[in-house]
Amino acid sequence: MTTVLKLGGSVVTEKDTRETVDDDALTTAAGIVGEWMGGDGSGSPPLVLVHGGGSFGHPAAAAHGVSATEGSRDAAALVAVHRAMGRLNERVVTALQAAGVAALPVRPLSLVDRTDEAVNCPAEPVESMLDEGFSPVLHGDVVVHREKGGTVLSGDGLVVALADALDADRIGVCSTVPGVLDDDGEVVTEIPSYGAVADLVGESESTDVTGGMAGKIRALLDTEQPAAIFGLDGLATFLETGQAGTTVR
Amino acid sequence: MTTVLKLGGSVVTEKDTRETVDDDALTTAAGIVGEWMGGDGSGSPPLVLVHGGGSFGHPAAAAHGVSATEGSRDAAALVAVHRAMGRLNERVVTALQAAGVAALPVRPLSLVDRTDEAVNCPAEPVESMLDEGFSPVLHGDVVVHREKGGTVLSGDGLVVALADALDADRIGVCSTVPGVLDDDGEVVTEIPSYGAVADLVGESESTDVTGGMAGKIRALLDTEQPAAIFGLDGLATFLETGQAGTTVR
Repeated sequence: MTTVLKLGGSVVTEKDTRETVDDDALTTAAGIVGEWMGGDGSGSPPLVLVHGGGSFGHPAAAAHGVSATEGSRDAAALVAVHRAMGRLNERVVTALQAAGVAALPVRPLSLVDRTDEAVNCPAEPVESMLDEGFSPVLHGDVVVHREKGGTVLSGDGLVVALADALDADRIGVCSTVPGVLDDDGEVVTEIPSYGAVADLVGESESTDVTGGMAGKIRALLDTEQPAAIFGLDGLATFLETGQAGTTVR
Repeated sequence: MTTVLKLGGSVVTEKDTRETVDDDALTTAAGIVGEWMGGDGSGSPPLVLVHGGGSFGHPAAAAHGVSATEGSRDAAALVAVHRAMGRLNERVVTALQAAGVAALPVRPLSLVDRTDEAVNCPAEPVESMLDEGFSPVLHGDVVVHREKGGTVLSGDGLVVALADALDADRIGVCSTVPGVLDDDGEVVTEIPSYGAVADLVGESESTDVTGGMAGKIRALLDTEQPAAIFGLDGLATFLETGQAGTTVR
């Protein structure tokens, strides 16, 4: 049973302080994943991790004029964003390894390309890592966008593409909120369609270049797999049961 | 006409001083490539670059017990070698960009996997970069090796796999020697088979973990494309004419 798990950029970084990891949150998340995987990695359940950009990716993209929709042909600008994400990816991989996870970095710029309509993510390299007992760790990144040069592919967009390419069984999105909240501040346990929650999540007004909660839900509704959105408190429960926070079907 | 160009690790690094770039040689090589590509990158001929490990990759591989044949399942060891190569790759990409080449990094660990018999290199991400006017820059790296965990894939091995995957038109290997030398110290201009030069290059006795000149020639004889082996002095001629130093057919 293959799991694709997103660790939100706002979970693993201090989102308001440039290029700063939230060490406590990252260590906690890595520890929960390591515990679930059984410590020594032998017989680990297949797990693909994806992390967002947080205070590494988003400011770099803004500073270098690279976005999710407008392409750039400036290789130096694209590489500046990619390197910022690489610095965060190193920290995440190291934290996971320290927690006993056989984590290996996978850089989307090296693997993925896209068009306006679709993201092309070859499954083989990631599947080989899983088959050999490793846990690939991907991230939101700049990728080549046909006819446009390069654009930002969000962690959420990558989760959807990966889950499809790998025919994964379940998707988890670990966020800073415990799920989608209703007007009384209670977690909505299940979302069958975007219309059902449009008034709760509204349009994306966030400065997050890649979409916020509205974009997350739209993307997850497109997947074959059930997808859960939960906070760090729900991570262990999600890994054990596949259910935590809000489930998008 | 697609060219795959290898910049030897011994060309771009000081091979005897750990993790030290040979700035003069790298700047010279990058300048020649940039000149050939026409400066502003518009209408650039498709060029894929690969660099070796030099004083970055080889000592790291030796220190962490990772080799081209014995697999490792130690994710931290594999990542240590991969990061050492990443540091060199950053320097090479930056030097090429400074010379006007729209260089983008491609990390083989993210893209390639292998078996004892074959290297599997999906062509699409690299082709998309070329189609969009970028020059991908790959390198010798650790990659997932089915049934073995991870092993070192040499820059030479990657050149052969890439040339095949991309159906490239020509291969250039820029080395520290002007070509394969005969007993009188003259460059052998053409090698039709390994037997023809076995006594000149001998068996590989080098400390280079990935094969030296003998391994280079064996690998290049397997390719469909003509492959030229030349020194930095021959790089401009190779790019212009496809012929320099020793040509292996």
